[in-house]
Amino acid sequence: MASTLGTLFRITTFGESHGPGVGVVIDGCPPRISLATSDIQAELDRRRPGQSRLVSARAEADHVEIVSGVEDGLTLGTPIALLVRNEDARPQDYAEFGGLFRPSHADYTYEAKYGIRAVAGGGRASARETIGRVAAAAVARQFLAAAGVEVLAYVKRVERILALAIAPGRVTRAQIEANPVRCPDPAAAAKMIRLIERVRKRGDSVGGVIECVARGVPAGLGEPVFDKLEADLAKAVMSLPATKGFEIGSGFAGTLLLGSVHNDPFYMEHGRVRTRTNRSGGVQGGISNGEDILIRVALKPTATIALPQETVDRAGRSATLRGRGRHDPCVLPRAAPMVEAMVLLVLADHWLRQAALAAAQVASRPGRRAPRRR
Amino acid sequence: MASTLGTLFRITTFGESHGPGVGVVIDGCPPRISLATSDIQAELDRRRPGQSRLVSARAEADHVEIVSGVEDGLTLGTPIALLVRNEDARPQDYAEFGGLFRPSHADYTYEAKYGIRAVAGGGRASARETIGRVAAAAVARQFLAAAGVEVLAYVKRVERILALAIAPGRVTRAQIEANPVRCPDPAAAAKMIRLIERVRKRGDSVGGVIECVARGVPAGLGEPVFDKLEADLAKAVMSLPATKGFEIGSGFAGTLLLGSVHNDPFYMEHGRVRTRTNRSGGVQGGISNGEDILIRVALKPTATIALPQETVDRAGRSATLRGRGRHDPCVLPRAAPMVEAMVLLVLADHWLRQAALAAAQVASRPGRRAPRRR
Amino acid sequence: MASTLGTLFRITTFGESHGPGVGVVIDGCPPRISLATSDIQAELDRRRPGQSRLVSARAEADHVEIVSGVEDGLTLGTPIALLVRNEDARPQDYAEFGGLFRPSHADYTYEAKYGIRAVAGGGRASARETIGRVAAAAVARQFLAAAGVEVLAYVKRVERILALAIAPGRVTRAQIEANPVRCPDPAAAAKMIRLIERVRKRGDSVGGVIECVARGVPAGLGEPVFDKLEADLAKAVMSLPATKGFEIGSGFAGTLLLGSVHNDPFYMEHGRVRTRTNRSGGVQGGISNGEDILIRVALKPTATIALPQETVDRAGRSATLRGRGRHDPCVLPRAAPMVEAMVLLVLADHWLRQAALAAAQVASRPGRRAPRRR
Amino acid sequence: MASTLGTLFRITTFGESHGPGVGVVIDGCPPRISLATSDIQAELDRRRPGQSRLVSARAEADHVEIVSGVEDGLTLGTPIALLVRNEDARPQDYAEFGGLFRPSHADYTYEAKYGIRAVAGGGRASARETIGRVAAAAVARQFLAAAGVEVLAYVKRVERILALAIAPGRVTRAQIEANPVRCPDPAAAAKMIRLIERVRKRGDSVGGVIECVARGVPAGLGEPVFDKLEADLAKAVMSLPATKGFEIGSGFAGTLLLGSVHNDPFYMEHGRVRTRTNRSGGVQGGISNGEDILIRVALKPTATIALPQETVDRAGRSATLRGRGRHDPCVLPRAAPMVEAMVLLVLADHWLRQAALAAAQVASRPGRRAPRRR
Repeated sequence: MASTLGTLFRITTFGESHGPGVGVVIDGCPPRISLATSDIQAELDRRRPGQSRLVSARAEADHVEIVSGVEDGLTLGTPIALLVRNEDARPQDYAEFGGLFRPSHADYTYEAKYGIRAVAGGGRASARETIGRVAAAAVARQFLAAAGVEVLAYVKRVERILALAIAPGRVTRAQIEANPVRCPDPAAAAKMIRLIERVRKRGDSVGGVIECVARGVPAGLGEPVFDKLEADLAKAVMSLPATKGFEIGSGFAGTLLLGSVHNDPFYMEHGRVRTRTNRSGGVQGGISNGEDILIRVALKPTATIALPQETVDRAGRSATLRGRGRHDPCVLPRAAPMVEAMVLLVLADHWLRQAALAAAQVASRPGRRAPRRR
Repeated sequence: MASTLGTLFRITTFGESHGPGVGVVIDGCPPRISLATSDIQAELDRRRPGQSRLVSARAEADHVEIVSGVEDGLTLGTPIALLVRNEDARPQDYAEFGGLFRPSHADYTYEAKYGIRAVAGGGRASARETIGRVAAAAVARQFLAAAGVEVLAYVKRVERILALAIAPGRVTRAQIEANPVRCPDPAAAAKMIRLIERVRKRGDSVGGVIECVARGVPAGLGEPVFDKLEADLAKAVMSLPATKGFEIGSGFAGTLLLGSVHNDPFYMEHGRVRTRTNRSGGVQGGISNGEDILIRVALKPTATIALPQETVDRAGRSATLRGRGRHDPCVLPRAAPMVEAMVLLVLADHWLRQAALAAAQVASRPGRRAPRRR
Repeated sequence: MASTLGTLFRITTFGESHGPGVGVVIDGCPPRISLATSDIQAELDRRRPGQSRLVSARAEADHVEIVSGVEDGLTLGTPIALLVRNEDARPQDYAEFGGLFRPSHADYTYEAKYGIRAVAGGGRASARETIGRVAAAAVARQFLAAAGVEVLAYVKRVERILALAIAPGRVTRAQIEANPVRCPDPAAAAKMIRLIERVRKRGDSVGGVIECVARGVPAGLGEPVFDKLEADLAKAVMSLPATKGFEIGSGFAGTLLLGSVHNDPFYMEHGRVRTRTNRSGGVQGGISNGEDILIRVALKPTATIALPQETVDRAGRSATLRGRGRHDPCVLPRAAPMVEAMVLLVLADHWLRQAALAAAQVASRPGRRAPRRR
Repeated sequence: MASTLGTLFRITTFGESHGPGVGVVIDGCPPRISLATSDIQAELDRRRPGQSRLVSARAEADHVEIVSGVEDGLTLGTPIALLVRNEDARPQDYAEFGGLFRPSHADYTYEAKYGIRAVAGGGRASARETIGRVAAAAVARQFLAAAGVEVLAYVKRVERILALAIAPGRVTRAQIEANPVRCPDPAAAAKMIRLIERVRKRGDSVGGVIECVARGVPAGLGEPVFDKLEADLAKAVMSLPATKGFEIGSGFAGTLLLGSVHNDPFYMEHGRVRTRTNRSGGVQGGISNGEDILIRVALKPTATIALPQETVDRAGRSATLRGRGRHDPCVLPRAAPMVEAMVLLVLADHWLRQAALAAAQVASRPGRRAPRRR
């Protein structure tokens, strides 16, 4: 189950960083949804490395193939398998690390767990594993878009450079894609780019915070008590590499407020229940309340750096690791589409779960007949 | 699945706050573990309200009954059902709220989702639902203790009062239980108590941060890629009421460091791979590395306050809510055992998953015979 | 997961035969369905022993309590916990078997698996475990009935006595309940009763075949490829004690026909696709086709008999088992409600899964908005 | 979940009969098991069509590619993705059926469920979907073999021709593979072949019974109460196309015996508990008892025939279907490896579940330390 996520919209990813390929099987996508290879390719292109000096130089085209589940541009309701071949695999770049555990990587823990590991590029622990997630999320986006749900993630902070001029309720994808750092505050973006350049030259790395907003989510998504919407969002984003923290709504800062200030008063607007503030972040008691869902994710500075580091090898001998290989001085620009992907996947799953509940309520009333395709 | 958590150590909770009772079914507990009612009762006593002025005055004895799965003080390997009767249910206290949506509670969202709800005390959204979790965690603690794993949670911060004099590697349960606020830093605890008293008199509430350490966790727990240990921990604690954020290791603060500072260097100690720092929080690549696991959880100020609040009723009419009923001015002292419970449940599940993997590796070697009970 | 069944309508049973009680937690029942204790009690009364000389003399009232999930006679959408106390537990009746493995019972295999077992009455292997299933099925029946689905099981054969005068399409519950053997063919029923009486006097036992029909099931239930409707039905009934075989439609006898004879021709009737014959048993490719679903289940002769039997004890010493205790000379009359229960549970689950799919198809069309409660 | 099977050894199949390819992702295979492409290819070769006149003439090489989870011939413990390209897809052969529902096929029910379907070759309902199952089972066989478990399936009956000269305890794979009908009783095999030839010439089809034995299964596999070993075996084989019935041990015939005859007496042999007869079929109370596991599966005559048949088209118009395309006059020779595959998959899963339980029992004893890789 470790490589599977979701209840009704279930994805299973597979593939090592430097093996034949990576991919995903999506089980539970509704039938008769329009889906073209280009819908998925567009998302993969945002995720892939080599887009600018800011991120890893690995040059992968990452061409996706739809292996099953789609015919004549429409989903069949059967499992959708998506495959991306690894083309620029260079296992030899990693040969020298073979016996050394890279600090704050998964080398040692994989070894401890499995007694074996795909050394090159971290195997499954590589960010390359997220290709399957981003591809699956492109499918989720297709049917969530039809339902009026929009999800956007962007870089909110790099190290100490905080982007303040962003209104989550109105930010657009064009604003996010306007610069290579994916920060829709142009002034902050410029500073972030300069910082990342500086850090890259020193062979070091920086981290920061991604913010993600989901707009148009209807009230009612999320399942008490363990599958609360914020719980599933937390799990989903914390399953991404390099994440160290998760917040929803007021988050950690909200703990500094009094209850009388923190509570979100209800009022009516155009016949709809609204809240005056949104410290809840769009979720109350684990269920969406119709306001924007707003989360933030902490990403540590990239573990791969060019500077020498103290470590040990498999045999337990002290050693010094001297980095080479390709790496990102700052993972955040590429992490934004990944966070977006995880939020899309969680919302798609809960959207289907709520659709199921709503249908069951209607259909189980006396006098109703069974569910029928319309 | 919404009320079920875990893969191999699975719990399913049930019960409304003011219905006949609450409880849990545990499926997957190993057989022949010593288990007495008193083991569970002791944990429930820590969780229950009415222990001091700091928390809710609801006076529940919360007597637990083992309904199944145990005979002569030993677990049978079959489902363990635990039941706690609701005794001090006072639905009339809540009658007046009937039509009003309490701000930042789950009233509106349950109504939006189900079209019906157990009005009194929030039904399943009540903290009373956590009785089943804490009871199940008491069982998990029994067998994790035998394996040398210890989990302790305590109050790290209330509003702005931060407890600095705590060493997660050495803190004891006695220190935590030494004061009603469950903060093992006595000076900070005294300040916290005064603050909570002050806030209670004003009819207001405060939030803060719980920290939780797990010691003695062997390397190898956690499953890539979605069931990473930190991902499952995040989900588990974010499924508790009132949580707004989750961190592991360096958390959000870690994003301010350079990679060269943030990485945890490896070294050998007594033949074991160790890290010099623990910014990873005991987990790398989703798998435990043998260091202490350290997490922090943000809890918002309690939503239930005595001050008047703006809201609407079911019919969409503006209204003012005036609190009465019993409530906690600060949920943190009682939340510490809940966070501890969630961490225990996640570790028990992953401990069994890793035991399964280890057994499979051994047993699937040529020449080995099938698994046998010893 | 071993004690949990279902995907969207999930049940978890608990309880040993001679422990404090047995029961079930149902997670996934839609909200706002009318549910009274009497709805469940009526089904338990059909299942329980002591109804006639034909079945076990254990005198249990089997009073069910709804512990959670229902308020004012309506389901809340939250887990429904149902509890039945064990009242006529007589562990001493079983004391003498303590060390002996009863042939064709689960004594030896439980011991081999767990190294411990609830000796009295077989613990979880007892037919008493099915109380939880029958209680949960009573809830499933409530909402399936509203959707026009009716499920009836009856005794089709006892040993060699075959009931031929039964039309699955028209049989009624009244006909089934008209005699203690639950065979709606009165002439066959009379013979069955005489046979069972005879066998009981000799201290022996007999088996036979239960047939079960589900009428009013709409086309579209069942999920390719592993959760085919017949696959889930097979698993569900084969999880009942004493079952040795399962058939759907033409079953084993169908293997004697040529394809040209066996195939069910399609034709139209009142604008609906029908089949002229029903050798498919209402399911094609794992999905219901709108015809009656018809299955048969083989039940072995009860393992508990009064005659002496060769066996061994825990220490591996040869021994002779001499039965006492209470037992059924023929389990079939009581097994009919159990088979009915399992079919109801599977249909409820797949009905909700299909409702979910249908809702997703509708809602994911462009221009549609998200699912809403109506 | 519909395309996923298993709890700890989980497989997810994907692919349509005439799309780009078919395959499987295996999650939960233990690490460091030797696995070569040829191990899998050998099993696929047994399953594929075109091996003799007796089966479908579709000429597919069915070359399997290991896309992930294996490095240098050893499993990594990560998901193993296996892919087989469709090469001899001839969708045009099916064009003429486009609008017609083939009797006793899944055409109508897929249409009813999804409102869309992959017309050519039945899409997911095709026997081609089983490629993924057989490939996954080849992996399961690798580690079960190391544990001393052997699984063999063969043709027991074709229409009325019953193979009597087979001893399940001693039958070999060589005997099974000695003739194209996969019946290890040579005299019966010869008659079966003649019958199938005759039926093929008439454009008709026949069905029959597959028997499958699992030898060397240790006592203790299977989980009460719903995941009983026979229940999971029943589900697994009933999820294969064309299956109409399932039996274990004495099966339907056992219902004709008295309990005193049917019960399997226990005795000791070389310090091991054995049964004198094996009417239980190797499973008691849902748990293996160490005897051979013996099941039988009824397969209907192939639905695809060359003779004209009454049917309707999508628009509800009466029509006559005249078969063409490639088909099997008797599916049984190819079904034997499929049944074998399903039994292997179930045993692998339960073997891991029992290994997990055994490990948990050992490790949770006081004084023990946590699970470690050895």
